[in-house]
Amino acid sequence: MAQAQKITPRAKDFSEWYGDVIMQAQMADYSPVRGCMVIRPHGYRIWELMQRALDDMFKATGHKNAYFPLFIPMSFLAKEAEHVEGFAKEVALVTHTRLRATGKEGKDAIAVDPTSALEEPLVVRPTSETIIYAMFAKWIQSYRDLPLLLNQWANVVRWELRTRLFLRTTEFLWQEGHTAHIDEADAEREARLILGIYRRFTEEWLAMPVLTGLKTDSEKFAGALRTYAIEALMQDNKAIQGGTSHNLGQNFAKAFNVQYQTATGGLEYVWNTSWGVSTRLIGGLIMTHSDDNGLVAPPKVAPVQVAIVPIWKTDEERAQLSAVGRQVKSDLEQNENLKPGAKYFEWEGLGVPVRLEIGPRDLASGQVVLARRTGGKAPVPLQNVVGAVTNALDEIQAALFAAARERREKNSIRGATKAQFLEFIKGSGGFAYGGFCGSPNCEAEIKQQTNATIRVLPDPEFRSTEAPQTCMWCGAPSIAEAVWAQAY
Amino acid sequence: MAQAQKITPRAKDFSEWYGDVIMQAQMADYSPVRGCMVIRPHGYRIWELMQRALDDMFKATGHKNAYFPLFIPMSFLAKEAEHVEGFAKEVALVTHTRLRATGKEGKDAIAVDPTSALEEPLVVRPTSETIIYAMFAKWIQSYRDLPLLLNQWANVVRWELRTRLFLRTTEFLWQEGHTAHIDEADAEREARLILGIYRRFTEEWLAMPVLTGLKTDSEKFAGALRTYAIEALMQDNKAIQGGTSHNLGQNFAKAFNVQYQTATGGLEYVWNTSWGVSTRLIGGLIMTHSDDNGLVAPPKVAPVQVAIVPIWKTDEERAQLSAVGRQVKSDLEQNENLKPGAKYFEWEGLGVPVRLEIGPRDLASGQVVLARRTGGKAPVPLQNVVGAVTNALDEIQAALFAAARERREKNSIRGATKAQFLEFIKGSGGFAYGGFCGSPNCEAEIKQQTNATIRVLPDPEFRSTEAPQTCMWCGAPSIAEAVWAQAY
Repeated sequence: MAQAQKITPRAKDFSEWYGDVIMQAQMADYSPVRGCMVIRPHGYRIWELMQRALDDMFKATGHKNAYFPLFIPMSFLAKEAEHVEGFAKEVALVTHTRLRATGKEGKDAIAVDPTSALEEPLVVRPTSETIIYAMFAKWIQSYRDLPLLLNQWANVVRWELRTRLFLRTTEFLWQEGHTAHIDEADAEREARLILGIYRRFTEEWLAMPVLTGLKTDSEKFAGALRTYAIEALMQDNKAIQGGTSHNLGQNFAKAFNVQYQTATGGLEYVWNTSWGVSTRLIGGLIMTHSDDNGLVAPPKVAPVQVAIVPIWKTDEERAQLSAVGRQVKSDLEQNENLKPGAKYFEWEGLGVPVRLEIGPRDLASGQVVLARRTGGKAPVPLQNVVGAVTNALDEIQAALFAAARERREKNSIRGATKAQFLEFIKGSGGFAYGGFCGSPNCEAEIKQQTNATIRVLPDPEFRSTEAPQTCMWCGAPSIAEAVWAQAY
Repeated sequence: MAQAQKITPRAKDFSEWYGDVIMQAQMADYSPVRGCMVIRPHGYRIWELMQRALDDMFKATGHKNAYFPLFIPMSFLAKEAEHVEGFAKEVALVTHTRLRATGKEGKDAIAVDPTSALEEPLVVRPTSETIIYAMFAKWIQSYRDLPLLLNQWANVVRWELRTRLFLRTTEFLWQEGHTAHIDEADAEREARLILGIYRRFTEEWLAMPVLTGLKTDSEKFAGALRTYAIEALMQDNKAIQGGTSHNLGQNFAKAFNVQYQTATGGLEYVWNTSWGVSTRLIGGLIMTHSDDNGLVAPPKVAPVQVAIVPIWKTDEERAQLSAVGRQVKSDLEQNENLKPGAKYFEWEGLGVPVRLEIGPRDLASGQVVLARRTGGKAPVPLQNVVGAVTNALDEIQAALFAAARERREKNSIRGATKAQFLEFIKGSGGFAYGGFCGSPNCEAEIKQQTNATIRVLPDPEFRSTEAPQTCMWCGAPSIAEAVWAQAY
């Protein structure tokens, strides 16, 4: 099954390279259903590790998991005007519930039974605000029921025209958090808390540095008051939106009549937040770290962390080295809860961070060779192999993050004039920081001419030392610094 | 949110009781979508614990997780004749992909856009054999690729007319394993291995004793060669099918052309198995153990295992007892990886197995009171509280299983005549063991007259000491002992 394929170099065709990396590592495959992918075990394992880490963070901050229906009555979507506007053009609609035999042969042997039409069509959830807040209205009576902090791990469907493995697929896997709060301040605190969790998760686990900040109105979630996002820069200098956290205000509470009795006996609408990250992050992980030899997986989410490869010539050596290999494997598993795999010859393309070669000559001098996927080979004493591997994995995790951050900063410009901006964004590209007047017209013009959008109005720690005074595009007074980039 | 409701006694109305238990424990709720339920945190936590345990067992036996599309092209379903026949009448069909504004007001403001009709309708997966084996055909080339052992955790949809929380819902959550093997013996071994895992899981984790055995042709999976099942008996003496494991033979391999090159260079079709358990098991767990006071959760899958309740009168007591309570909570979490909850006054209805009451008088004599959800209260020394709780939880887990098995055996009859069978099955009901001639006519007649079906042809360890010689119904020679019951 694991046949090595040729990988197109990044410099030749980044998009081809991306697909090749995924195929060679057997992370995913195209399915017979338009726009839907199959996530194969080597890709799904990364998702499992991501889920575990994020889920622990959500639970540590008081969130509980629940599960809401896949289907949403069509009329629910219509209740929040911006929301339906945002999703109407990309929803899968269930309209019938039975098939019937046609009497014909082959693939025309069955057809939709027209007598099974639903009275009200159902929308396959593109996101679950409407169905969840309809339930919140039933569950929330008093201020004592707040905050209500829920999350669900689920599949969602958006009928996208142009799809790409992991990055944009008709169906994708995600988590969506949905919360209700007593007032705006508490909702805002929650939206910010989650943005911080997303940042910590992508940086510490995926080794992907991100900018955090606010979306402009033209880029915010359909129905939100404010949308916060994490944004990362890929190796081709295009940005990826890695996750969003929305303060929904009282928009959905009013649409679904989610009210609570206050401590003083009044009646108020709750304030909601929603937030999500998806399998798209796996695409971001690939495009951040991988190279022309294939996948580079950060150790913390690597499906296999250590490849153990005994190298023998004679049968006698084989028996001895295999025994040592098994012992090393067992030591790694027991002492550090690591995930080693034996005889992983395809370690490069599979992104395994560390490979241990056990050969007869090294073994005679009591050592093995530790090779890193990111480069470098050195002998380590056999009796210290667990410690050496653990150190190497920690160093690789840290080095991947540092390298990605350095690359991002090298591909960012600040305080550029309009001309410099145009040259940058149409040239090598990257994150362009500049003043923004707040006008949707400027945003639209820039997008039309350069395909670049405002990724975020960055949070204070990412802003330039000197605040821009004028709009980078029109010269009017700047209301906020913005970060532009072309994006996936 | 947690208002105690009255629970209908089992003896009065078992079905009402079942719904009341779920509502009081806030495990699930009805949704605005016909037949779809919402799984609330207290129910979903049980599912998470079940998932973790099962997933560990699957991985320990070499299975890997993957994810396949939610949608299946309609024509795929038609490729296996029995399969489409089995599912044609209960599938949700996606036919369109856009909504449009109608210009009307309110809930009629949007409608399905007729110009967005799909060329080929998509079936929302009722199960995934067809889409998965279409991918297997792409991935499997040689005998070296076998066995291929995959599993997915997913939602599936079957358009059921009569639904009931957890037991039968339009959408439900499950795992479905799909494997490919070199020959019939290896597929059979796999189907049997999984049946054993299902038995071990339901018995050791859910404390639900099960019968294992073969389904008759009229009850087997649509498209399978042989279906094995685990069957449990509920407190109302109706059976529940808790999980199935199918040897699919080469039926799907032939329909989807899944062939492999043999070691000698020939070309053969693979042999497949598929197997699944679902959120339905949560319904079985409830109906096995719970009582007129509400949920009884077996300790191993209890969302909260220990309720810690300080009981004070004065502020001084309050401070002291709360501190002791926090210490006990922390000790339990750290030493035994337990899940305690503080101040759980609703412990009965929530099914918390053990409650620790910390009062001033007991504390003065260095002890706390350990109360069991299943009955009994005793003081335990404070310095041994972790050990006492661990013992109590182990004992409760074992006692729940023993009690359920005893009840099942008390409600089973063996070697009954037709008259005795009719009296039993139309009376108190339960598992009726008897000879079976193998004729679908007998099965159909019995079902029509008594609503009872053959749950399984039991595996050897469950069979009667004396093998029946004649069919319990028609008197013809028996080909196998069968177990009849009315079932959910």
